[in-house]
Amino acid sequence: MPMELEPSPLALPFPDMPEIGGVTLRVARARYKEWDRCDLTYAELTEGTAVAGVFTKSACASSEVELGREQVRLGRARALVVNAGNSNAFTGYRGREAVEQIMAQVAAHLDCDPSDVFVSSTGVIGVPLPRDKAREGVENALAAEPCGWEEAAKTIGTTDTFAKGAHASAVVGGRRVELCGIIKGSGMIAPDMATMLGYIFTDADIAPEFLQQLLESANGSTFSCITVDGDTSTSDTVLAFATGKAGNPRLVSFDDAGADAFAAALQDVCRQLAHLVVRDGEGAQKFIEIAVAGAESDDSARKVGLAIANSPLVKTAIAGEDANWGRVVMAVGKAGEPADRDRLSIGFGGAWAARDGQPVADYDEAPIAAHLKGREIGIDVDLGLGDGRATVWTCDLTHGYIAINADYRS
Amino acid sequence: MPMELEPSPLALPFPDMPEIGGVTLRVARARYKEWDRCDLTYAELTEGTAVAGVFTKSACASSEVELGREQVRLGRARALVVNAGNSNAFTGYRGREAVEQIMAQVAAHLDCDPSDVFVSSTGVIGVPLPRDKAREGVENALAAEPCGWEEAAKTIGTTDTFAKGAHASAVVGGRRVELCGIIKGSGMIAPDMATMLGYIFTDADIAPEFLQQLLESANGSTFSCITVDGDTSTSDTVLAFATGKAGNPRLVSFDDAGADAFAAALQDVCRQLAHLVVRDGEGAQKFIEIAVAGAESDDSARKVGLAIANSPLVKTAIAGEDANWGRVVMAVGKAGEPADRDRLSIGFGGAWAARDGQPVADYDEAPIAAHLKGREIGIDVDLGLGDGRATVWTCDLTHGYIAINADYRS
Repeated sequence: MPMELEPSPLALPFPDMPEIGGVTLRVARARYKEWDRCDLTYAELTEGTAVAGVFTKSACASSEVELGREQVRLGRARALVVNAGNSNAFTGYRGREAVEQIMAQVAAHLDCDPSDVFVSSTGVIGVPLPRDKAREGVENALAAEPCGWEEAAKTIGTTDTFAKGAHASAVVGGRRVELCGIIKGSGMIAPDMATMLGYIFTDADIAPEFLQQLLESANGSTFSCITVDGDTSTSDTVLAFATGKAGNPRLVSFDDAGADAFAAALQDVCRQLAHLVVRDGEGAQKFIEIAVAGAESDDSARKVGLAIANSPLVKTAIAGEDANWGRVVMAVGKAGEPADRDRLSIGFGGAWAARDGQPVADYDEAPIAAHLKGREIGIDVDLGLGDGRATVWTCDLTHGYIAINADYRS
Repeated sequence: MPMELEPSPLALPFPDMPEIGGVTLRVARARYKEWDRCDLTYAELTEGTAVAGVFTKSACASSEVELGREQVRLGRARALVVNAGNSNAFTGYRGREAVEQIMAQVAAHLDCDPSDVFVSSTGVIGVPLPRDKAREGVENALAAEPCGWEEAAKTIGTTDTFAKGAHASAVVGGRRVELCGIIKGSGMIAPDMATMLGYIFTDADIAPEFLQQLLESANGSTFSCITVDGDTSTSDTVLAFATGKAGNPRLVSFDDAGADAFAAALQDVCRQLAHLVVRDGEGAQKFIEIAVAGAESDDSARKVGLAIANSPLVKTAIAGEDANWGRVVMAVGKAGEPADRDRLSIGFGGAWAARDGQPVADYDEAPIAAHLKGREIGIDVDLGLGDGRATVWTCDLTHGYIAINADYRS
């Protein structure tokens, strides 16, 4: 890891992850910053690899995101290049030219179309990606020995305090298919050093349109349900690559055998990766799961959950191990979604603190206080209106967040 | 002030404010908490006083807010009671009964309709306002000697670190009319102790419908343009009372002489009061004015401004005196409003850091760095799209905010 930061107390060890047929990983030094580490990650993908992607909704997205959106529509991928240390965002035409140079350089090496080469960048903004460094970094990567998942996960990282990976598998048409994912991100999400970039690789054979459908669906209940500080990067990207090397009968729709199993495995990897980003939230000391039920719709439940998850007053209350359910009421009230004060119930760790708009009779704070002392916090909200539900995840807001973002100059 | 907190470094001295004909202020002890201070404020208003009000948009508003909304529609007021130390929010029917008791008690004393008596409460939530303490507090207030503005401003406060008042005047139909306002609030806004409650008193003669129109208009560019932490109280309330004692020709519409002057004075008092709340923002070290121009509409400009003002990454950058315009780009991008990365310009303290989507050529950080060391920070954003403009105000996000909200139990 590049930074001298202590690993997050919520860090998980890097899992054992199998190789994926048709995927070769390499890392190299482009020296985007004055640091002693690899900062360029290269993944080569076999011919015929399908691709899907979801991107930031920011109106000020980077050139990488603009180009990536166009490339995903074509559905094909042969390579991925990830630059760490310079986000290339807000750099105008010069930034775009740097991305196009990388695409052309790799395309010439692989003898493929430049649109088959995906590029992501994360790091300082407003400085065009230096083209000479990028060229040398790509050259170094193309000549490097293949490496493993953990090395690649480390190399895409910037302010991350631990390497993040996840694995799942499914049986599709009698064949076992593997899914491996890596991700970086620690704030949610600072455009200068903490963009969320996630990549999922599978050997399944799947049509790109169906992969896109499954990735969007998984995104809606995983990456779209996490927040660290409510801020959104100009570069957030999640890409899924499917090489087809598992030899399963090609998945084209949910009518195909194994499609449900594959969708569940993809969802599982996305959820694990999303949780890892929250666990590396800047200054995080506690992992918070907010389960909202009784909303008028699932989407309404998700919005209420995110309003709670983004509330500085809720997040500081959890940091202070304070069962301050009034702050949760406040956050529900400001969400702009249907709610009725007199039907609202709020609990922590499975015990209700307030039911139907009033503190519970004979409220015993002891079990809740004990729960709040732990690392994994549950907040339960029942709006009492309908069947809509959602679960969102966040971390607490601590002095560590201020220290990382205010005490040091960028 | 009740708390042992140091006054905010952004505090302003309490201004000289004249008496308003038809308004009598008194404070008393209801002893809502174990503290040695007055915690009940009573304002008696002459017969014929007009009233207008704006309230929180929270879906979980307190009984005081629910009742206040109904009372404002009637347009008449004879008294105001403000309880400090217990917000009476999320207390169901028992909370409502306590408010109705206060209304009835004061109405019996004044021989008026209970709906002419306005009640606000701020403090801990989930505990019904104790009816015996409220009754004794009101009794004490009715028997107390009249007091001045500063005493009343102190008594409505909770976590406020300084008393907040503002004054303006206007000439209406040859008569000078005075406007005096007091406000409390320091977070924006914690429901347990930091709700924003503001009260404006004027001796102008004005129809309640017109007063309501002017207050809503002023609110749109003042109280609705400030934020400390993006959180919204269940009890936020601003009320305006007009006694008519100045003897001006009654203001009914903008066609009346002096209506523009009165509207400007009301706007001025609201802006001053709104700024004072920001200046007492929890942990605030810097007052930040964000001027957004070039938006597609004024409303769009306000939303972009608030997205910037609510961004933890922007607020921590200002706390760190860091000219990190990339975080402003990020906040513009996530606002959900029309924006074009390649037309966007961002500056600090009057100097552009980025123009038309790129860092300015020959960027000189020195004047911007000097500006950021001050207490009053300006952020300028030009979206380059249209004529929409708005100005919003906020404060920085510091260790002090975390200390106030996480380090002490409620």
